[in-house]
Amino acid sequence: MRKRFTLEEYKEGVLAGDRTKLSQAITLAESALESDLALASDLVQELLPYTGKSIRIGITGVPGVGKSTFIEAFGKLLLEQGKSVAVLAVDPSSKKSKGSILGDKTRMENLASDNRAFIRPSPTGTTLGGVSSKTREAMLLCEAAGFDVILIETVGVGQSETTVKGMVDFFLLLMLSGAGDELQGIKKGIMEMADGLVIHKADGDNLANAKKAKSTYSNALHLFPLAENNWSPPVLIASSLTKEGLIEIWEMVQQYTDQMQSSGFWESNRAEQRLNWLDENLQFLLGKFFLEHEQVQEMLCQNRNRVENGELSPLSLARDLITTFFNSTKN
Amino acid sequence: MRKRFTLEEYKEGVLAGDRTKLSQAITLAESALESDLALASDLVQELLPYTGKSIRIGITGVPGVGKSTFIEAFGKLLLEQGKSVAVLAVDPSSKKSKGSILGDKTRMENLASDNRAFIRPSPTGTTLGGVSSKTREAMLLCEAAGFDVILIETVGVGQSETTVKGMVDFFLLLMLSGAGDELQGIKKGIMEMADGLVIHKADGDNLANAKKAKSTYSNALHLFPLAENNWSPPVLIASSLTKEGLIEIWEMVQQYTDQMQSSGFWESNRAEQRLNWLDENLQFLLGKFFLEHEQVQEMLCQNRNRVENGELSPLSLARDLITTFFNSTKN
Repeated sequence: MRKRFTLEEYKEGVLAGDRTKLSQAITLAESALESDLALASDLVQELLPYTGKSIRIGITGVPGVGKSTFIEAFGKLLLEQGKSVAVLAVDPSSKKSKGSILGDKTRMENLASDNRAFIRPSPTGTTLGGVSSKTREAMLLCEAAGFDVILIETVGVGQSETTVKGMVDFFLLLMLSGAGDELQGIKKGIMEMADGLVIHKADGDNLANAKKAKSTYSNALHLFPLAENNWSPPVLIASSLTKEGLIEIWEMVQQYTDQMQSSGFWESNRAEQRLNWLDENLQFLLGKFFLEHEQVQEMLCQNRNRVENGELSPLSLARDLITTFFNSTKN
Repeated sequence: MRKRFTLEEYKEGVLAGDRTKLSQAITLAESALESDLALASDLVQELLPYTGKSIRIGITGVPGVGKSTFIEAFGKLLLEQGKSVAVLAVDPSSKKSKGSILGDKTRMENLASDNRAFIRPSPTGTTLGGVSSKTREAMLLCEAAGFDVILIETVGVGQSETTVKGMVDFFLLLMLSGAGDELQGIKKGIMEMADGLVIHKADGDNLANAKKAKSTYSNALHLFPLAENNWSPPVLIASSLTKEGLIEIWEMVQQYTDQMQSSGFWESNRAEQRLNWLDENLQFLLGKFFLEHEQVQEMLCQNRNRVENGELSPLSLARDLITTFFNSTKN
């Protein structure tokens, strides 16, 4: 049995920057037990006044782009700049990732050994839809523990990029140089989410190609619509091996931060994210009660493929399911 | 009082291609009355075996790109090709559009006068979230009435492009030539949804610029990720004034249709759309019951801005709202 603490104990531990207590608080938030979730929810609410001061950076890219080595090298640079760093991962289906995430995290030994860094492996055995709020809570807990920069890695499965984009201030896309072939692995829509692009592994024989890719992508991106914040995503090149270009990435993030904080976009974006988070939680919790309902489950199980193959109208089934649900909860 | 018919009367009328009955059936589906919605839902279910045979084309573009003139010219070309055409519009907030939609539709006189064309103005005074299913139902009703091609126009407000993308086979983006400045009006993410791009108003002094834009965009698009169907969106130029390029657009759609039907993507995409439609309907109906609940409304009204400004945790409020809702429905 895992040991639980009181609300006060968790709160004091997290605020004191106690990493063991921070880990235990995140585990509490990731729990499947209703009593744990209620306590975690209260804890986050209590700690809310101490959150919001970090810079939240989301990092994505296809497998093989070198996300882990980048996060380790970039994290170390941030430590050198006097910043403390927490690393989280959003992985909506850990079971599918064949353990690579855990492998990645153990490889970040250099970063993990510094006491101003905190690395949290992604949760395992999670429920779809519940993960996003748990990562958000993990993020808030890290902020209350005093970390200056939160790096959130997405593994690119399912809706994970959209989820991460919805909880960060800056979304960074790592790419490989080449004639665009590597992009086949990037899902549609991801490029337009990015606040900055980095051509990674720009070292040795790759350097010339990386420079060419930088210029090609810069030109192409100018043809695409600007975001509402009027920020034009820069294209940079970097190597986690030679460390070339890493400081420029941090400067880009700082420039973005300055610009968005003066324009007011920083805060309005976070306010919008909070309301979206409320919506997501409501949808998730409503859906949870609904889908756990026995008759609903049965009806859905029997008719879902009839909707899929076009025999049954989606609206008809939806109406029947809702009627079944509300009639029985009223009794 | 609007006159209602029996399920059989609607069904027979729609299947016979009776345009008045078709209009009345769509009005029924757009109704705010529960009894109308129940009847419309049954009607769509009854007509389902007669649907699915049309080509569904979504059309978007910034205001001023000439969507109405394009739809009229392209619609007439389809009639010349021996196809019957229905035109629908998705407009999630008609009140904000200052009547331009209605104005547009009345300008399509040339197309509307042909009895193989059916033009349905967008619904007015609609509830957010409910519109998408209603447009889908309007689309199915038009299919059951025998139309070969359905053109669905999106006005670009809110989530309307995503909604339309989720109900069509082919999504067409109209653009203007120029140095990319016109794109500022296009929302991020829209370009990556497109199955084909058309530089519109490619006539007179604009023609040279349009040709240049075609080549610039073709090159840029090659850098961007391919969709899972392996279709690379072509960039074409066209004029609704001179009719140049319109037939090439229809050929592009036909080529896409052939390719996707042989690869199986056509049907798998529609199957996915049906399941998404089920999800959307469930979310909408669950949300409707939830948000119509008096205590929920009151609690949400009092606390929503506390979430927005970061005082109250989104998860805490969501949990309280859900508890309130389910405790009271159980009594």
